[in-house]
Amino acid sequence: MSAPGQLNDNEIYLGSFLLERLAQLGVNKLFGVPGDFNLTFLDLVEEHKQVKWIGNCNELNAAYAADGYARVKQAQLNATHETATDNSTPGEAKDKDGNEKSQGGVRGLGALLTTFGVGELSAVNGIAGAYSERVPVLHIVGVPSTKLQKSKALLHHTLGNGAFNVFEQASQGITCARAFLQRAEDAAAEIDRVLFEALKTARPAYVTLPTDLVFTPVDKKRLDTKIIPDRVGFHDKSVLPTGRKVDDDEKKRLEFVVSEIARLWQNAKEPIVLIDACAIRYGVGHLVRDLIQATGVKFFTTPMGRSAIDEDPANGFGGVYVGAVTDPKVKELVEKTDLAFMVGSLKSDFNTGEFSYDFPQENVIELHSDHTLVQYATYPEVSFHQLLPALTKKLERKRNVSEPPADLGLKVEIPDSPKDKMVTQAAFWPMMGQFLREGDVVVAETGTSSFGMIGTPLPKGATFVSQVLWGSIGWAGGSTLGALLAAEESPTPRRVILFTGEGSLQLTAQEVSTMVRLNLKPILVVLNNDGYVIERKIHGENAGYNDIATWKWSQLLDTFNGYAEPKPTKSLLAKTRGELEAILADPEFGKAEQIQLLEVIMDRQDAPEALIKQGKLSAELNAA
Amino acid sequence: MSAPGQLNDNEIYLGSFLLERLAQLGVNKLFGVPGDFNLTFLDLVEEHKQVKWIGNCNELNAAYAADGYARVKQAQLNATHETATDNSTPGEAKDKDGNEKSQGGVRGLGALLTTFGVGELSAVNGIAGAYSERVPVLHIVGVPSTKLQKSKALLHHTLGNGAFNVFEQASQGITCARAFLQRAEDAAAEIDRVLFEALKTARPAYVTLPTDLVFTPVDKKRLDTKIIPDRVGFHDKSVLPTGRKVDDDEKKRLEFVVSEIARLWQNAKEPIVLIDACAIRYGVGHLVRDLIQATGVKFFTTPMGRSAIDEDPANGFGGVYVGAVTDPKVKELVEKTDLAFMVGSLKSDFNTGEFSYDFPQENVIELHSDHTLVQYATYPEVSFHQLLPALTKKLERKRNVSEPPADLGLKVEIPDSPKDKMVTQAAFWPMMGQFLREGDVVVAETGTSSFGMIGTPLPKGATFVSQVLWGSIGWAGGSTLGALLAAEESPTPRRVILFTGEGSLQLTAQEVSTMVRLNLKPILVVLNNDGYVIERKIHGENAGYNDIATWKWSQLLDTFNGYAEPKPTKSLLAKTRGELEAILADPEFGKAEQIQLLEVIMDRQDAPEALIKQGKLSAELNAA
Repeated sequence: MSAPGQLNDNEIYLGSFLLERLAQLGVNKLFGVPGDFNLTFLDLVEEHKQVKWIGNCNELNAAYAADGYARVKQAQLNATHETATDNSTPGEAKDKDGNEKSQGGVRGLGALLTTFGVGELSAVNGIAGAYSERVPVLHIVGVPSTKLQKSKALLHHTLGNGAFNVFEQASQGITCARAFLQRAEDAAAEIDRVLFEALKTARPAYVTLPTDLVFTPVDKKRLDTKIIPDRVGFHDKSVLPTGRKVDDDEKKRLEFVVSEIARLWQNAKEPIVLIDACAIRYGVGHLVRDLIQATGVKFFTTPMGRSAIDEDPANGFGGVYVGAVTDPKVKELVEKTDLAFMVGSLKSDFNTGEFSYDFPQENVIELHSDHTLVQYATYPEVSFHQLLPALTKKLERKRNVSEPPADLGLKVEIPDSPKDKMVTQAAFWPMMGQFLREGDVVVAETGTSSFGMIGTPLPKGATFVSQVLWGSIGWAGGSTLGALLAAEESPTPRRVILFTGEGSLQLTAQEVSTMVRLNLKPILVVLNNDGYVIERKIHGENAGYNDIATWKWSQLLDTFNGYAEPKPTKSLLAKTRGELEAILADPEFGKAEQIQLLEVIMDRQDAPEALIKQGKLSAELNAA
Repeated sequence: MSAPGQLNDNEIYLGSFLLERLAQLGVNKLFGVPGDFNLTFLDLVEEHKQVKWIGNCNELNAAYAADGYARVKQAQLNATHETATDNSTPGEAKDKDGNEKSQGGVRGLGALLTTFGVGELSAVNGIAGAYSERVPVLHIVGVPSTKLQKSKALLHHTLGNGAFNVFEQASQGITCARAFLQRAEDAAAEIDRVLFEALKTARPAYVTLPTDLVFTPVDKKRLDTKIIPDRVGFHDKSVLPTGRKVDDDEKKRLEFVVSEIARLWQNAKEPIVLIDACAIRYGVGHLVRDLIQATGVKFFTTPMGRSAIDEDPANGFGGVYVGAVTDPKVKELVEKTDLAFMVGSLKSDFNTGEFSYDFPQENVIELHSDHTLVQYATYPEVSFHQLLPALTKKLERKRNVSEPPADLGLKVEIPDSPKDKMVTQAAFWPMMGQFLREGDVVVAETGTSSFGMIGTPLPKGATFVSQVLWGSIGWAGGSTLGALLAAEESPTPRRVILFTGEGSLQLTAQEVSTMVRLNLKPILVVLNNDGYVIERKIHGENAGYNDIATWKWSQLLDTFNGYAEPKPTKSLLAKTRGELEAILADPEFGKAEQIQLLEVIMDRQDAPEALIKQGKLSAELNAA
């Protein structure tokens, strides 16, 4: 907060340097909450032409929003990748020896600004979720001046014990890199270091910005060297941030692995590809798509891998695989394979039907960002960024493997139920499947909504985001804000549709008011089933502790709309299946030209089939 | 979650043991959010006769509520202390040699239940605030079974890397003790250990409860030995949880310190007592009151020391001291002292007018829980628990020192302003001073409200709570829920009045719906001044980043009242001073027989005098 220093032509303020780096990496929105230790940096944000400040109602919501923004940006970047047949990624140069500088492409990155102590700690759960689910988010914390830090002054927002480093500790296990800026000399390099790590590992990173360093001049020329993660996810020791040649040893190793896999491929009669979370997070969706198209292999996705590529049966899509929770016909189809390419596996309990995969290890190839498994062999440092294009070239097409299966196991048909009664979960999700259209962004809250979506088909160009591993209820409310702002940056208009429960939305409901303030236009579908249904399914079906407050959801948008010139909003209520059908049939609703909140009343004991199965499996495991 | 084991007559389930301990310590409310790793423990809570489950909308709000509950319980315990002339504390036995087992008395303790990872991390900021402000709260975290922990399974709510201990790390710097229950053999002892530490140090503690240990049988007899913190805050090495004799060395040391102070006292012409935060937190308010009554010394409080004892000028109360932020007449009165007894000092920036105390060290005595300062000398381990009663006996009364000052510096008179215009901050706070009545609990949000309250007189028996050091906006919204539930346990009815800003309440607004659900009856005074006023005063007076969403506050209670049988609620709006006067004059409003939300429209650039002074001091320090 010191008076801005004089800049010469070769200099830029450190705070501006940070913003320029974010801008270079496509971060156009900065989420957070103002606090007295980040206000002068916010002055620079206000002046910035590209990075826009999005003030949130609280820090946890802001962290969720930054996470949602990064996810949807990543999906949009993936979708615009051209096929990799020319071995290059659009917009990225090869180095002078013709090697690709980056096969991972620019990453969907989110950014969050909080204040020292009180602010940053409120965001911790959101950051941990991004770490768990591999979403790169830069958490910038405005902290007291370096002088005050050294004095151990008894400042507000401290623990009163002179310990200024406790909050950093809270970020330690849940970020991939941390920088505590203390000196003008290395501050810019430190920022670059943590940004590079965040992009490389697809994890959140943390940087503290003391008030007295915001206006410190740093060398402007540093910005000419871009931060390009060299083979994202690949363990490489090259110097940041330049590209690097693939050396001969690596080439030989890669060729060896390719030939091993090609040998298995030749004998395989019913190979499949199973796409999982890290295929999305590391931005290799387009490389998987190329492999599938080149070989004609059937593909499936896990819940966390959904929408990595278009789920089109004509191109070989066979359904969603979740171990024991899978639709029986799909399960049989998947598990009878004699060669499963698992791409970016993240075998968490809810993503695998409580660890119930059923494949002999001899039939499994796992492709990861930093290693590859072939049957029982591990090949460290062989990344899917290199391996996927190599396999696409090498593996010969197998005739007819991609013939679409008779039944995808997805809920397409809408089962009958009385029109004048509450809509059933069994009917609701296929109705939503029909409502979705090309290019939609679907945010599904953990619990009823994410399990409901497991069985719901996704249209072409759709993006599906859900927090299947971390599973923090309330995440979807904040994340939807970020998804909306990312979708706004898409060249084509995208609807953003949130599916959540009334219990979950209560955790982060105030962030809906930010959507109203910014005149964003989500469709917020609130499944009102009177309590924590997922918990009921695991334990305490009728226990009082699974009851929650009863809100008038149809008033929420209006309560958040206290402007002199009110924003357009619409609240809808479907107490019966008939009412829901009428709403969905109304073209005005589908146009999504204003923020809409649709409350759907459902039975408190009703739940999607997949959730009932998972609930039983979880209870068994907890009891074991 | 294993099937409950068979209990013999000498046994109790570990989960029940924990609940019995809470009940013994007067914890009648358990705050939190259900999650799949705490559900079986919640079954035991539901069955428990004394400890009642209070489900919150989210975990941060729950932590704030537990903090507010503990604070108000502490105040109520303090108030019921009789004078210590017989050297005993009601309800506590002396040991067989006649030494007091505990001079600190039973403590106001709060408790919070969350689930592994997602839940506990959301609460971290609330726990850190309790640590900073010295509020004992037990944070119980339901975690996966010990077996699952050892397996490093890729469970939901984990980071996906097999690390099950990362979240404990986040609690490390912000709790006084942590127990990670792993075995039936020492689990009960571990629970006792962390509870003892929490009570002794007036800090939060942390305990993980794995699903498979909830129904583990433990020895019931252990409950017969109560947890009584032996001289709370006093560093003693005696074995938990029995009492201990004061040995001869300690007696001699105490006598020496008493005689040193008595010597200074004899020569002092204008001694004062300055009561601060830790006098409240360590429950010595009644001991300070005894000293003041016995000696007739004038007393003052800091912002954090307010309502430690009745602020009655007839008993020597002279006003609120905040260094340079103090009313000039009070400042002179305080700083001209030739002997200042500072009791429980916590010299944080906002509590001292940005470190602007002006006392020669020769004139200062500081009394703390674990040491004493006399001029330049430090006496380790001499606690105010022992020293205050000894001084009360020893120091002779000085005639007339307690003569009430002509002017307390508090805002009693209401300055004129137009009735048809917005009420000014200058008028508002004295109006509130007149509105307050005996026994009220006042919760003031950090910022405008806490600074406004600095100048507002508090009636007899009032309890004032505010988060002056930690200063996390949003705290007051959650804390008020806890304050309400603690006040319900008071033998006499108490009104609970929240003062907050519309920006602050947006952080935790959903918790108001829990107040509606439980039919609690706070008066929620929302100062609507269109943005973050405290931040504007520090920096960015007209910056867009200090703008926030505009809500219809008068609809909030109704939106949270979706019950088949709606709860009684009342929303009031004062756009002008005249409207506010009419509301305050209405006896129905003052009765507080239903939840009431009073929105007061104020000018966005108006602020209490103390806040304007503090804002300038803070900006200067940040710039230094």
